[in-house]
Amino acid sequence: MKFKLIFLLIPFCAMSQVSDEQMLRSIYNNNLNQGSCYQWLEQLSNSIGSRLSGSEGAEKAVVYTKSELDKLGLTRVYLQEVLVPKWVRGSKEEAHAIDNGNKISFPICALGGSVATPQNGVSSNIIEVKSMEELNQLGKEKVKGKIVFFNRPMNPEFIETFKAYGSCVDQRSSGAKEAGKLGAVGVIVRSMNLRLDDLPHTGVTNYGDILASEKIPAAAISTNGAESLSALLKKNPSLTFYFKQSCQILDDVKSYNVVGEIKGSENPQKIIVVGGHLDSWDLGDGSHDDGAGCVQSMQVLANFKQLNYQPKNTLRVVLFMNEENGTRGGLKYEELSASNGENHIFALESDSGGFSPRGFSIDSDEANFNQIVSWKELFEPYLIHKFVKGHSGVDIGPLQSKHIVKVGLQPDSQRYFDHHHASNDTFDAVNKRELELGAATMTSLIYLIDKYGIQ
Amino acid sequence: MKFKLIFLLIPFCAMSQVSDEQMLRSIYNNNLNQGSCYQWLEQLSNSIGSRLSGSEGAEKAVVYTKSELDKLGLTRVYLQEVLVPKWVRGSKEEAHAIDNGNKISFPICALGGSVATPQNGVSSNIIEVKSMEELNQLGKEKVKGKIVFFNRPMNPEFIETFKAYGSCVDQRSSGAKEAGKLGAVGVIVRSMNLRLDDLPHTGVTNYGDILASEKIPAAAISTNGAESLSALLKKNPSLTFYFKQSCQILDDVKSYNVVGEIKGSENPQKIIVVGGHLDSWDLGDGSHDDGAGCVQSMQVLANFKQLNYQPKNTLRVVLFMNEENGTRGGLKYEELSASNGENHIFALESDSGGFSPRGFSIDSDEANFNQIVSWKELFEPYLIHKFVKGHSGVDIGPLQSKHIVKVGLQPDSQRYFDHHHASNDTFDAVNKRELELGAATMTSLIYLIDKYGIQ
Repeated sequence: MKFKLIFLLIPFCAMSQVSDEQMLRSIYNNNLNQGSCYQWLEQLSNSIGSRLSGSEGAEKAVVYTKSELDKLGLTRVYLQEVLVPKWVRGSKEEAHAIDNGNKISFPICALGGSVATPQNGVSSNIIEVKSMEELNQLGKEKVKGKIVFFNRPMNPEFIETFKAYGSCVDQRSSGAKEAGKLGAVGVIVRSMNLRLDDLPHTGVTNYGDILASEKIPAAAISTNGAESLSALLKKNPSLTFYFKQSCQILDDVKSYNVVGEIKGSENPQKIIVVGGHLDSWDLGDGSHDDGAGCVQSMQVLANFKQLNYQPKNTLRVVLFMNEENGTRGGLKYEELSASNGENHIFALESDSGGFSPRGFSIDSDEANFNQIVSWKELFEPYLIHKFVKGHSGVDIGPLQSKHIVKVGLQPDSQRYFDHHHASNDTFDAVNKRELELGAATMTSLIYLIDKYGIQ
Repeated sequence: MKFKLIFLLIPFCAMSQVSDEQMLRSIYNNNLNQGSCYQWLEQLSNSIGSRLSGSEGAEKAVVYTKSELDKLGLTRVYLQEVLVPKWVRGSKEEAHAIDNGNKISFPICALGGSVATPQNGVSSNIIEVKSMEELNQLGKEKVKGKIVFFNRPMNPEFIETFKAYGSCVDQRSSGAKEAGKLGAVGVIVRSMNLRLDDLPHTGVTNYGDILASEKIPAAAISTNGAESLSALLKKNPSLTFYFKQSCQILDDVKSYNVVGEIKGSENPQKIIVVGGHLDSWDLGDGSHDDGAGCVQSMQVLANFKQLNYQPKNTLRVVLFMNEENGTRGGLKYEELSASNGENHIFALESDSGGFSPRGFSIDSDEANFNQIVSWKELFEPYLIHKFVKGHSGVDIGPLQSKHIVKVGLQPDSQRYFDHHHASNDTFDAVNKRELELGAATMTSLIYLIDKYGIQ
């Protein structure tokens, strides 16, 4: 059931007389009264579920989102073919320690891209380190034949949790590669989660160009598990750790970016792109990462259609495939854009969860940064206060147009890593209004960029 | 388990040389590394549970919070006796409609302070209105003998949900009084919740000074229930509605405000107070409303002790009893303060949930508002951006000192009414970091007020 629309919208036949203040108010009202993004997310999350690249869920998501974009009356909706890696988790992972004859189980999950353990698992002494430096100081002699346990917690002092993630994620992304070089037989990594709980969080691990024979299996352990294991190791450094996982890397498979566009009325050759990534990890249903960003990006175009607003520039939504373990979709989009000689002036990505929007992270030159900051007061009534320079997004990262401004939506980050890449990244963790406010914030910035252009 | 404190604190023996920037950083670090507020809330919520005035839970909460304050090494900790109303819900409420012989059940809960229905319930035609004006236009002739169904939804267009609440809550607070005057036999009120779900939300209803014989029973219906009932009524305006509740108003009972204070080193006669309310409604465990505000306020004093910072002015935490259905604690605190000739210079209340802090609502003259706004940059690294004039809080409202500045902490409001006064206002809905960031934000403002005084 939905609220009936009993509030008057500004008549958009008189659009040219509408002030920016009025237009933003209409955009927010449209989202909060009749936004579709929450219903789309409900379908993506609850009917389709997880969408790991190459999975059935990912393919269903391509079909579903294309069919929803088809209903919006856009200029065109199409797919961009892209080959993606296919990694499968296999059977449920197992892990335990043997401490003086007692068996203590731990919740783990294989890291994305990891190799399997031998069929009967791997069993060895386990050695705890907090950093790559500490690992390398130990050297081959102490690491060879052992399981390495990376246990540096995310630093709670970072107010923005993405910074805490950034300063810790090397353990997950390259722990297996580095420990493998020293002859370790497996890696256990503390989950990238600030909260102490029992959920292991997956995420990609990269082996780089090391020999196949040096690739060792890697798994994440829950934060509570990491604390317990560390405490056990303090009492008994020679305990035996065992884990088993049967994940596999299969051949690449065909998949797609989903694209929809409204042709610009004045500068159709200038492209504004908005997007999120359609793939997700396999443990939850990817509601925050990044179902939210996909449906918000779709809603941006829906808003313009519903408000009967014709953008001057071509406005394109892209649902990128394979952000999580390859960025193949983002790379393919740039490749096609370059070969078609396209001119992107602006790109906006939402891939930080569907939480209350707080502002923007802006990757641009000074003039464009200042122009966006000059709109700060327009956003004040919507509690969008944060306009900072910084990283925009992984999928729009490869875009190379000569003059392009790239922006990432910045929602409140406090709860994000409680759910990130874990089995509780689910629909019930998304609040409808927070999701809609994010979509309205994205639409408002794109409206201003479309109207005033870039510097 | 807790994170070990591996991050260096600034040595506070050299406190006078510490800049405001450094002090705020230390306050935030202290909360995020070794705050106690989340553990206190876990006890209040999960071990004690709901704390309706006069209930066993409320009394246990008085004992528990006093004992925790006793451990902090404050100058003194004491109780202020206050008589509070005692309302009890009785057995589980029941409600259904009879529509052409079909019985359709609805989730309801009695409003706080409501009278009971007759023992066998009340059954009648039901008439839907959206406002008091609409009710009064119907008049006695059409209302007499009927159940009145107030069904004005909270307006989703308000970005701050408290404004949507404020523009709707008259239905709950005075619907029964007004409908009773017109001869209605009962009132059903749409829950004050922006989300569509199946939970009824309680909250106080006031009969004012109408005759006892005119008092009619009032209950809240879930938002989904309200939508269904409204749809049913459109098809069959003459359906019969039934509800039964057995709540009772008992005699007032003795309870307490819990108070702890650190005596000021320079101006002990000047008092800075920080607080929340210890009572809650009975359906959930009152984690957001207002367990969060209580433990954050306790944490403010704990921070100063842990950081070995001696305030110049007397710093007092007050956990007020009976905010929800009487404000007797707030009134008693002011009464005692006046009779003791106390001089309060500043009061800070946290009663808007334990969500990510966004800023402050400031009730003061222009000079003090400007002083607080002048500290905006100090708060910027902690994403505290919102400094607005407005209401501070219900419990500090009665404070009458000649020169007093009153402030309310403003957390993100989007999720608040999903939980407010309902059975899902529970511990799991509170995020540890968000709670701690709120406590740090409160402590920082109090540090600045203590250091620079008021204008």
